[in-house]
Amino acid sequence: MTNPARLSPSRARALFREGLRAPTSGYSAGYAQANLIAVPREAAFDFLLFAQRNPKPCPVLDVTEPGETSASVFAGDLRTDLRTDLPAYRVYRHGELVEERSEVADLWREDLVAFLLGCSFTFEASLLEAGIPVRHLETGTNAAMYVTDRRCRPAGRFRGPLVVSMRPVPADRVADAVRVTSRYPAVHGAPVHVGDPAALGITDLDAPDYGDRVEVRPGEIPVFWACGVTPQAAVAASAPEFAIGHAPGHMAITDIRDSAYQVP
Amino acid sequence: MTNPARLSPSRARALFREGLRAPTSGYSAGYAQANLIAVPREAAFDFLLFAQRNPKPCPVLDVTEPGETSASVFAGDLRTDLRTDLPAYRVYRHGELVEERSEVADLWREDLVAFLLGCSFTFEASLLEAGIPVRHLETGTNAAMYVTDRRCRPAGRFRGPLVVSMRPVPADRVADAVRVTSRYPAVHGAPVHVGDPAALGITDLDAPDYGDRVEVRPGEIPVFWACGVTPQAAVAASAPEFAIGHAPGHMAITDIRDSAYQVP
Repeated sequence: MTNPARLSPSRARALFREGLRAPTSGYSAGYAQANLIAVPREAAFDFLLFAQRNPKPCPVLDVTEPGETSASVFAGDLRTDLRTDLPAYRVYRHGELVEERSEVADLWREDLVAFLLGCSFTFEASLLEAGIPVRHLETGTNAAMYVTDRRCRPAGRFRGPLVVSMRPVPADRVADAVRVTSRYPAVHGAPVHVGDPAALGITDLDAPDYGDRVEVRPGEIPVFWACGVTPQAAVAASAPEFAIGHAPGHMAITDIRDSAYQVP
Repeated sequence: MTNPARLSPSRARALFREGLRAPTSGYSAGYAQANLIAVPREAAFDFLLFAQRNPKPCPVLDVTEPGETSASVFAGDLRTDLRTDLPAYRVYRHGELVEERSEVADLWREDLVAFLLGCSFTFEASLLEAGIPVRHLETGTNAAMYVTDRRCRPAGRFRGPLVVSMRPVPADRVADAVRVTSRYPAVHGAPVHVGDPAALGITDLDAPDYGDRVEVRPGEIPVFWACGVTPQAAVAASAPEFAIGHAPGHMAITDIRDSAYQVP
């Protein structure tokens, strides 16, 4: 296959639509990736408020009208369909994960409002450019993600723990990793925590709650960024009647350039 | 009176509660100021979505629960009451401005959800610190605000024009003004437009739609920032049954330090 980094967003989405299943870290370099969470209209205000109150894990990039199956971040590609164009989905009923599948066309409902939230995969190209290695890109695996003991600010029916992604960073590059990622607040921005997993309630770095184990080598510090799987932990904790999310690490690839989310 | 810049936020709010009426530009230097818009619960999702889709004019700092009369941005001051602690309010019925008054305690409703949105007064202290003059602070008047011909992205029932504030900036300091303010995306951030009022549909700089006339002197360029009065223009255009906003330039003074909204 072509180098996934070189795939255009629409080509990558077409591959996923045709059934390819893979974590999207490293795909379509230079284009922002997004987390998906879709909830019924009657829960949408509570969720949007939850996102507004927890902007580090839940930076909102786009919100659809009820029933809509595309979004403005896919501008220019009319074939894009949120129900088929991510590599994998998770389906929740009353907070319970009932199914993981490669498309959700037959489960989509007229009353679903889909939220697309920034993903830290977006700033990985900038980390690489700064000479900061990204281990899960080197190994071709998924990122490591953990449920922490930090609570999000609740909103209406939604509450739940903060979920983080972890990247091992050489100790002398931690400051650079902070500096580089802080310029991308819309895709989780600066780390929420550096260096002490126990202080986040993470007892075993080798056993992530989502994604794959990522080795932390001697001289490296585990650095934790807020993660867009947080809404799915909130769905699990709050049990709305129905919800659809992406499978962790299997993101929506947008047509928005990384640089559009860079400040200042 | 004490120099308004030196008033603590809670002291300033107490003065407004006791009836003082003044534009708040320059008050409580170092603390963020906020726009207010309160709408009934049944319109709140549409409004929050409107804000999410128009983050330059509508950066959400805080959202109350229905009926609540304080907010977390006033942490530490239990007396704070959103209904009395701004210097002046505007009341809208079916989109029509029906009243401007100094408090709205008797008009508040159990179903009102209040939104506090970032205000560009917040970054004026940083402009001054960078040696960039702020004319309306020098003259002790209100800022000049204009309805433009730019449309916001609609959301549900809300639609309307972008409103901007204008500050004259010496031509050789425009780049610095952009640089300084771009570090504050939560309080409107970088200018939306520099130097050509006609291109925004503003035909007469001397006749602002809100606030006071501000002189643009030779060698100065009018610089335009997105303005938190935009939601009130949306209320006027969209006619929700009821809404309460602040009187333009007469803001809520929060207990959050400017620096909390500074990136990176």
